[in-house]
Amino acid sequence: MTDYFQKHVDLLDKALDACAQRYSWSAWPENPSSKIHGEEKPAAGKAAFESRLQADFPLDQPGTTGHLGAEVSPYTRKPLGVRYPATDVPALYDAIRKAQPAWAQASPQERVGVCLEILQRCGDNLFENAHATMHTSGQSYVMAFAGSGANALDRGLEALAYAHKAMADVPGEARWQRQFGRDGVADLHKQYRLMPRGVGVVICCATFPLWNAYPALCASLATGNPVVLKPHPSAILPVALVVRTCREVLADAGFDPNLVSLVADERDAPATMALLEQPETAIVDFTGSPAFGTWLENNLPGRLVYTETAGCNSVILESTDDLTATARAIAQSLCQASAQMCTSVQNIHVPADGVRVGGERVGVDAVSRALVEAVDFWLADPRRAATLCGTLFDDSVQATVDRYREKAAADATILRDSAAYSHEEFPGARTATPLIIAADPAHREWYRQEVFGPVSFVIANGSRADCLADATGNARECGAITSHVYTTDDGFMQQAIDAYHAAGASVACNLTGMPINFAAAYSDYHVTGLNPAGNACLADLAFVAQRFRIVQSKVMA
Amino acid sequence: MTDYFQKHVDLLDKALDACAQRYSWSAWPENPSSKIHGEEKPAAGKAAFESRLQADFPLDQPGTTGHLGAEVSPYTRKPLGVRYPATDVPALYDAIRKAQPAWAQASPQERVGVCLEILQRCGDNLFENAHATMHTSGQSYVMAFAGSGANALDRGLEALAYAHKAMADVPGEARWQRQFGRDGVADLHKQYRLMPRGVGVVICCATFPLWNAYPALCASLATGNPVVLKPHPSAILPVALVVRTCREVLADAGFDPNLVSLVADERDAPATMALLEQPETAIVDFTGSPAFGTWLENNLPGRLVYTETAGCNSVILESTDDLTATARAIAQSLCQASAQMCTSVQNIHVPADGVRVGGERVGVDAVSRALVEAVDFWLADPRRAATLCGTLFDDSVQATVDRYREKAAADATILRDSAAYSHEEFPGARTATPLIIAADPAHREWYRQEVFGPVSFVIANGSRADCLADATGNARECGAITSHVYTTDDGFMQQAIDAYHAAGASVACNLTGMPINFAAAYSDYHVTGLNPAGNACLADLAFVAQRFRIVQSKVMA
Repeated sequence: MTDYFQKHVDLLDKALDACAQRYSWSAWPENPSSKIHGEEKPAAGKAAFESRLQADFPLDQPGTTGHLGAEVSPYTRKPLGVRYPATDVPALYDAIRKAQPAWAQASPQERVGVCLEILQRCGDNLFENAHATMHTSGQSYVMAFAGSGANALDRGLEALAYAHKAMADVPGEARWQRQFGRDGVADLHKQYRLMPRGVGVVICCATFPLWNAYPALCASLATGNPVVLKPHPSAILPVALVVRTCREVLADAGFDPNLVSLVADERDAPATMALLEQPETAIVDFTGSPAFGTWLENNLPGRLVYTETAGCNSVILESTDDLTATARAIAQSLCQASAQMCTSVQNIHVPADGVRVGGERVGVDAVSRALVEAVDFWLADPRRAATLCGTLFDDSVQATVDRYREKAAADATILRDSAAYSHEEFPGARTATPLIIAADPAHREWYRQEVFGPVSFVIANGSRADCLADATGNARECGAITSHVYTTDDGFMQQAIDAYHAAGASVACNLTGMPINFAAAYSDYHVTGLNPAGNACLADLAFVAQRFRIVQSKVMA
Repeated sequence: MTDYFQKHVDLLDKALDACAQRYSWSAWPENPSSKIHGEEKPAAGKAAFESRLQADFPLDQPGTTGHLGAEVSPYTRKPLGVRYPATDVPALYDAIRKAQPAWAQASPQERVGVCLEILQRCGDNLFENAHATMHTSGQSYVMAFAGSGANALDRGLEALAYAHKAMADVPGEARWQRQFGRDGVADLHKQYRLMPRGVGVVICCATFPLWNAYPALCASLATGNPVVLKPHPSAILPVALVVRTCREVLADAGFDPNLVSLVADERDAPATMALLEQPETAIVDFTGSPAFGTWLENNLPGRLVYTETAGCNSVILESTDDLTATARAIAQSLCQASAQMCTSVQNIHVPADGVRVGGERVGVDAVSRALVEAVDFWLADPRRAATLCGTLFDDSVQATVDRYREKAAADATILRDSAAYSHEEFPGARTATPLIIAADPAHREWYRQEVFGPVSFVIANGSRADCLADATGNARECGAITSHVYTTDDGFMQQAIDAYHAAGASVACNLTGMPINFAAAYSDYHVTGLNPAGNACLADLAFVAQRFRIVQSKVMA
């Protein structure tokens, strides 16, 4: 039997160091270029994906009662035809119950080793995963390879490093000797054992199915808990591939593969409640809508619930030395993944009397024009547009865009209209460029919620202080995962940082020349847990420390 | 301004090392003897306590609307007459709100330093605290000095060490540099800031008011949260003394004393709900009844709730080489603090065909006699009886004893009756020796719950396997804080350890010659959180890691 912990210990050590120092590092390649990987691997990944289509997905799970699956590619608009096990949840849990004791009994190192091997094998399958992600979540190929590949795996490794650290904090044994009174001498041999909580259910989202799945999987599995992955009905395949890999690694390591399982569903027959009804379900990791996330947070007493939902991410554009660069940075966020990312910017706050650019004040209209031009800059080349925007994962996103276009036409001003861009490779792809609406505080009920998809608002607040009050108030009350400030005024920057922090939000200042949506594993604590956009952080000790408990024995020598 | 962190850094380092190695260590004296402390300190402590009686307790808190307090000494049976502030909770919270920002802004080291100074000053006040604890909780002087002194302070320092460790895991800043694509170069200066959750409310119990108060106080306060202590109405004074010390230290350190406050109440007008109704209350630490603990766990969604309640602690007496020593170890637990400790033994399981002692099998009746004799051994000397048993903190405990005596007289056998023992120093003290009832599984509804006070059961189960099944089933379903096994059979010992662990309970094997109730800070993880006797552990990373969150700023260079 391979000692997977020893095999990957350098990788783990590097991750631990990166978490401690929080520098830039990735354990996997972000670039799918054949210059790096050769021709064969990308082609093999594509072929592997294609071989999955119109077929039963090979996953031999207990409790299988039939097949289901209704994924439709946002690129081809055709059903993928992949058929996953339909699961009788109680029967599956019977099997999980049998798998549990040996896993709980395994040493933390053994379990961490298995998780490291899982991540590594998933890392060997990035090309197939990229195609699977494209044709479910609708991401572009490059984003699907990087964001749902290396970036997601890194978050998994990060969570695993924290789980390892938290478990390693508990020694295996101790000797304890002392005198009691005149006569009593105690000499105790103590052993400490880590105990899992129960089954961890991981509810994945449609647009970035693995970004939270890897961390939740690693955090729960490494600490001894079997894991059931419940993908979004639109994006099952990327999750199924991971589950398949997990089951292979577990079997190779001599464990019961039922320690990781898939419960897929379709929209009209969701499986989540059946999983929550199982008393063994002790941990729930959720990524998805604020409404269901809040419900989970409030209605599962005695269980651990980790949520990442959404908010209304803001930019305060107060001043800049380079309006073009700033506008492009913001515009890139409006375009990237068609603003279906949890880090996408939505609300751009601008003082009503304009933005200071160098020595001059540039009015709101001109700033808005600069933003629109910056969006058009990103979209000018159809290939770049496709790489940047990808597609809308579902018709409902287009419906949201249409709804806001109508509202804006009636009660506001459309600064930039949304339209499909033409996709070279997939002419039928469901695409939409950013809709940008000129708003002011009269429209606050429009922008004080997540508008999921490529809809954004340029909001003219009174003063920069009003911008800050509006943006941070919204972060506090409606949630925020990312917040941005552009300013050349150090005093205002500090004021903004303090105000966002007081609102329970993190903040980035003057980011240009890079994709501002980027949240770096090992460096950016993702989601503060202090505002309505989620209660958990990827990743910190709080994300892992509760997933196991400690029992001990003490024996008198 | 004194740098309290530097002043006490050696103490903290020692505590961190003790937690990591889990050896025996205490930072404070357990022995009140004047041979160690001289004559003056004990006398001064007693005088200080006496000066508190029949007087307003000096605590200048906002929101004070009058005075209250109805403590009665279990020794003298007389009201203490100490009058504490009656608090208008919203007005107090207004003041707390003002105190909060500067404390959140202080560095983790500064806050840890203040907590270390608080513990040290409380450690300088152990004699006054001992008298205060005696005359409220009813503990004996020795127990009040050690168990509510050093042992409790150690638990506080332990929790503080974990809080420090969890906070130190987050670096203050980082530099993050990477290339994006061909042109983009990002160079970010990141700063990470720890944010408190809100107000921590600490609900203390009657019999060991500080044992959980110090850990909860330190864990919440060090991580930036103001703390409100809500003592049991029978045992306010020990808590009030701590609050007074906290407020002094905070003021000396330049912080607002309202960061720690007392909300005392009387039985007929409890203040807890008013504290829970405050939206700022983000953390609740509770020690007390399983019923209210469970209610708190289930009804405060979105808040952190840490409970230590109670269970039906068991002993399995399977075999021993020394029945007298074993019986004395168990009997000491039945006597100690009149079995009002969370670690007191209640259910003594014995195989129906007897206990193997050396080569022989000793029948249940003879084992029961040995236990009764052992209790009588401990109680033979009135001074030792007083030191060991202390008093019943409240009439309700005597009522419980009486109720079980009646039940047993009707439907079981009384092995040893309870009676008052006579207390030399306080002839009117409310005392009771152990009531021991012969039971069998027909009485399981009697013993499958905490019977609070000196009531225990010798339970004749069928076989040793039946003993184990009964005891571990009760631990799983009804809770257990301590569990004991006495056996000379290594195989059975391992089986018992595994069975208790599987039930979510810790277990001690063959402890004799020491007080088996003793739970050692820095070494014994107290409460597993896996059975109904509580959801939190003193102390581990899970006890502290959620009490703060992380926000960050990143600024492009």
